Amino acid sequence: MKRLIIPMVLLLFSCSEIHPTNKEAELKIKKLMSEQQAAWNNGDLEEFMQPYQKNDELKFVGKSGLNKGWQTTLDNYKKSYPDKEKMGTLLFENLEFEPLGTVHFLVIGKWNLFRKSDTLSGHYSLVWEKQEHGWKIIADHSS
Amino acid sequence: MKRLIIPMVLLLFSCSEIHPTNKEAELKIKKLMSEQQAAWNNGDLEEFMQPYQKNDELKFVGKSGLNKGWQTTLDNYKKSYPDKEKMGTLLFENLEFEPLGTVHFLVIGKWNLFRKSDTLSGHYSLVWEKQEHGWKIIADHSS
Repeated sequence: MKRLIIPMVLLLFSCSEIHPTNKEAELKIKKLMSEQQAAWNNGDLEEFMQPYQKNDELKFVGKSGLNKGWQTTLDNYKKSYPDKEKMGTLLFENLEFEPLGTVHFLVIGKWNLFRKSDTLSGHYSLVWEKQEHGWKIIADHSS
Repeated sequence: MKRLIIPMVLLLFSCSEIHPTNKEAELKIKKLMSEQQAAWNNGDLEEFMQPYQKNDELKFVGKSGLNKGWQTTLDNYKKSYPDKEKMGTLLFENLEFEPLGTVHFLVIGKWNLFRKSDTLSGHYSLVWEKQEHGWKIIADHSS
């Protein structure tokens, strides 16, 4: 019996260590996305863009295809959403969190944009990476 | 001098080992995608679907949002592309290969569909995973 207890305790510990790490990452990403939502709804695109990795390697696939770079992505958002009325109220609904190894996460979800004139919606697939300064979006495919 | 040579040789070896691994993976994925293209152009959707992971965890984001599962994805393809004329000629143009750790790859590209009646195009973001039976697509966002 004793011979079984130690491996079982070790197994439990190792499981509880794997699980919380992913759960922790999920929570951190959820918090960042909730902050993004708040920034958008506050009309602050620069703040909304904070979790995107701030360099030319950021990949954004949208209506116009693939665009690279943080500044380009911000400029494109500014063109499409020039004022608070156009920005409306954003609501993220996260559908899937899938860890890809230990420092990457795939997050799939639905975005909703409620505006005075219309309601838009679509889906996003985000690749997050754990970097020196926390979790960052390295690729976004939104449609 | 000698004290420096050994670490430098080791460094060179380790670098040359990291690089070819990614290059190898890239080549394998390119080969699989070229086989997918051939299968599509041969009117064979089941063969086209071979590199997608064959279980209910496969994630596909398309026009109708998120759908899960290999069979559902195949069924949806069959509905949208019921015959060879509707399938037309597919051409993939891969734009970005980004390793995510050692067993995942993000591939972004443009798809073109040349048909008698029209030409369609769009973009895909594929997440590939190195599994027991080779590289498999675990998530596809196509728009």
